[in-house]
Amino acid sequence: MRKHSIDLNSDMGEGFGPWKIGDGVDEDIMPLISSANIATGFHAGDPNIMARTVHLARTAGVGIGAHLGFRDLVGFGRRNITETPQALVNDIVYQLGALREFARLAGVSIQHVKPHGALYMLAARDESLSRLLIETLRTLDPTLMLYCMEMSVTCRIARELGQPVVREFYADRDYDRSGSIVFTRQVDRLDPERIAAKVLRACLEGRVKTVDGEDIEIGFDSVCIHSDTPGALALVQATRAALARNDIRIAPPLPAVAR
Amino acid sequence: MRKHSIDLNSDMGEGFGPWKIGDGVDEDIMPLISSANIATGFHAGDPNIMARTVHLARTAGVGIGAHLGFRDLVGFGRRNITETPQALVNDIVYQLGALREFARLAGVSIQHVKPHGALYMLAARDESLSRLLIETLRTLDPTLMLYCMEMSVTCRIARELGQPVVREFYADRDYDRSGSIVFTRQVDRLDPERIAAKVLRACLEGRVKTVDGEDIEIGFDSVCIHSDTPGALALVQATRAALARNDIRIAPPLPAVAR
Amino acid sequence: MRKHSIDLNSDMGEGFGPWKIGDGVDEDIMPLISSANIATGFHAGDPNIMARTVHLARTAGVGIGAHLGFRDLVGFGRRNITETPQALVNDIVYQLGALREFARLAGVSIQHVKPHGALYMLAARDESLSRLLIETLRTLDPTLMLYCMEMSVTCRIARELGQPVVREFYADRDYDRSGSIVFTRQVDRLDPERIAAKVLRACLEGRVKTVDGEDIEIGFDSVCIHSDTPGALALVQATRAALARNDIRIAPPLPAVAR
Amino acid sequence: MRKHSIDLNSDMGEGFGPWKIGDGVDEDIMPLISSANIATGFHAGDPNIMARTVHLARTAGVGIGAHLGFRDLVGFGRRNITETPQALVNDIVYQLGALREFARLAGVSIQHVKPHGALYMLAARDESLSRLLIETLRTLDPTLMLYCMEMSVTCRIARELGQPVVREFYADRDYDRSGSIVFTRQVDRLDPERIAAKVLRACLEGRVKTVDGEDIEIGFDSVCIHSDTPGALALVQATRAALARNDIRIAPPLPAVAR
Repeated sequence: MRKHSIDLNSDMGEGFGPWKIGDGVDEDIMPLISSANIATGFHAGDPNIMARTVHLARTAGVGIGAHLGFRDLVGFGRRNITETPQALVNDIVYQLGALREFARLAGVSIQHVKPHGALYMLAARDESLSRLLIETLRTLDPTLMLYCMEMSVTCRIARELGQPVVREFYADRDYDRSGSIVFTRQVDRLDPERIAAKVLRACLEGRVKTVDGEDIEIGFDSVCIHSDTPGALALVQATRAALARNDIRIAPPLPAVAR
Repeated sequence: MRKHSIDLNSDMGEGFGPWKIGDGVDEDIMPLISSANIATGFHAGDPNIMARTVHLARTAGVGIGAHLGFRDLVGFGRRNITETPQALVNDIVYQLGALREFARLAGVSIQHVKPHGALYMLAARDESLSRLLIETLRTLDPTLMLYCMEMSVTCRIARELGQPVVREFYADRDYDRSGSIVFTRQVDRLDPERIAAKVLRACLEGRVKTVDGEDIEIGFDSVCIHSDTPGALALVQATRAALARNDIRIAPPLPAVAR
Repeated sequence: MRKHSIDLNSDMGEGFGPWKIGDGVDEDIMPLISSANIATGFHAGDPNIMARTVHLARTAGVGIGAHLGFRDLVGFGRRNITETPQALVNDIVYQLGALREFARLAGVSIQHVKPHGALYMLAARDESLSRLLIETLRTLDPTLMLYCMEMSVTCRIARELGQPVVREFYADRDYDRSGSIVFTRQVDRLDPERIAAKVLRACLEGRVKTVDGEDIEIGFDSVCIHSDTPGALALVQATRAALARNDIRIAPPLPAVAR
Repeated sequence: MRKHSIDLNSDMGEGFGPWKIGDGVDEDIMPLISSANIATGFHAGDPNIMARTVHLARTAGVGIGAHLGFRDLVGFGRRNITETPQALVNDIVYQLGALREFARLAGVSIQHVKPHGALYMLAARDESLSRLLIETLRTLDPTLMLYCMEMSVTCRIARELGQPVVREFYADRDYDRSGSIVFTRQVDRLDPERIAAKVLRACLEGRVKTVDGEDIEIGFDSVCIHSDTPGALALVQATRAALARNDIRIAPPLPAVAR
């Protein structure tokens, strides 16, 4: 049950043109994580930022993932848009390819994909979207790891179809009793020690407290800390320190087809 | 001098969302050409249209190219934007990758790239942009054919660096005495027989009349007919008929590294 | 019950940059209608098209309205986006002001506002959005007429707060038994005579047949024919002819505060 | 020659959706200035930010201006786009109206307009653009003050046509010997005391040192400090303090038709 190693992922490259989100400290966070979800231009990110962020990740030896959002810059991909699964998967194919070309140029490959924000939550509950997305990934690249929540429809279908999954634990989000996170459009500054303790307990005991104060079991392969949470760097540092004190190593997820 | 075979290329997939440009007859033109320049979303095109257009091209056995524009939907990529070569090449990498992923999904590969509109004209005269673009293509994919004008800086540098080029003849644009086309943001309806005769003469004699009435020599490997020119289908049909009557075959360009 | 005069409204200026939607026949339709809903740039329309369309409407003596959409060009405002009422009303204020400035430049004023597509349908059922929108209109311009469906929440609250309403009858949409239209993202070509007969019957008897074949009563002050319905011009012409044969005049809606 | 009062203007509301630029300290800067250039959505700003910023300005008693840019979010309006004067003026009309509606809702009026970034510099040298812009302002609102540089074509034509101008002095930009600023896409952190001394000298002596070390005379009615310059708040504070120590008051520009 107790983990000896865990992936630590964070969203990187979430600027747009001259604009920053959060504290704008990608350069500081990148060396501290093992997997980077790089924004692919629809909810955040632009080609210059993508080029720079892929380079940062390669230099730090961090696994590169495509962070795929709704086409919604003004809403930062955190608003739901009613759209057919086919159109959303086409958006995803477009964004994935765009990032893959920057990876190709940098001589690295893409480790994973992760839908962002409202698209992640939509896929988590929408079977037809998750199924079409995963069938498409099966055709495009059957080794691409798909980040998702254990209790999600996405996770169930990926396992059914054989696409490798990486189940996430959200350090900076609250859980409800279903094991889903409580979606929010804005997160306040959090106490680093409290977050680190929450992650550590999840790694040691596989449990987390819900918003209602209940304890639930939680299965996961990766810890996510959002880089746009104010004070994100301190959260990452405190979490790493707590894990290190308990001999839990930060490392990219294993290829997990058979998981 | 006389050609026995020629590539015929046209811009495909130039819609956006529900909008159409030109006559909206991609389905009719696609089977009549040998190479399709597919809009990649910055000046036109969206993921749904790209998916559909790649499928159309594959079905028709037409070579697939990435039609790469300035990020400028409202101006349809026909306005110049002052930007660094590096930023423009990043835009190109992004768009190329997006199309490549749709090709990958369809099980085909990309034959060529072609900058669109103002970006094509800018690269034709800007050495630093052309050089950075071609160096990037050398790294990404040294067999990708680059469409350009023979008299352009783009053509000269591609040959210098060894990237294969396909030199274009513009059926529906006017030439100046330098061998460059006279750039225009809007083209009127043209007479199909006159266009067909212009193409035929270029194929037979390698010559074209300029806007000043002079005759100049013109070297080319492909004939371009824009699909947003009003009555484009009739232009393509008349051109094909004139070429057929003279035993000139329509066929994709040969791999032309050594050209 | 029988009408002697009716407003005929249509959506105008729904292009974007070089792109057209529907048949692109605004110039032909404008002189045949009494009120124009001019796209204000978020779902369609751009400043050049808005300037031109305001000029067209002024020349034809047609009432000018702001056609206010979700910020969603690729989806043409026909997709729902989850957003707070305040943010949506801010989007509306922005768009309304933009059109008002073109009207000011042309020396005319704005007659009405009409939410477009998914925003129209959302307001029709969302009390907090309709209330905030109408309270905002009360402050901005208490004489602006608000186009809506009679059975909508929008209509009820506008009456409650005293903002003048113009209730619409949709010539080219199907009705359900609640008196609401069946929302659709794409409409096929329709038979002009059938549409004209449907409008005429509504004007003479105040009744329409639903998708289930039932007859319902329908109260309205304006007939809407969408200009992006294929063959829209023929629909408008047939409708006008049928109304004329029955001595029903086309005229802008009366100021209807007390309605 | 020596000034007893001067306008102090700054760009406000330059965020977009969740993104910030510069230090994000509009709330702190607003009470320290006399005129606010509010971004109108094309290069920065969105309806929510505009509503909030108009409210901030009204609360602080600061004059409201429309900061009008190229349609270029990713480039923050700092890239030149080749476009006809008419199309650019249509973009300006659109943006001006959008802001005016928020002002109307807040019960205040618009004091001034100021083109932003590359559009400001383009108008400064392009007679046909400046002329069409000013003719349009003459029709829309002949009392709107137009911010510009004294040596610009814009200033000359505004005076010729009778539109009131406010000539700017740029605290945080370098001057060339023509009296024009040296345009830059990015500005580094500057020393507050050096900037304050530069402004003070300009106010006392009407002179500034150019990049070449020469002294030139400079005529101006307003001092501009960009809010996206890193450390902008300190620049504004130091400048205010230096002016106060010399009994120079910060106050909005006078209506200046006859200037």
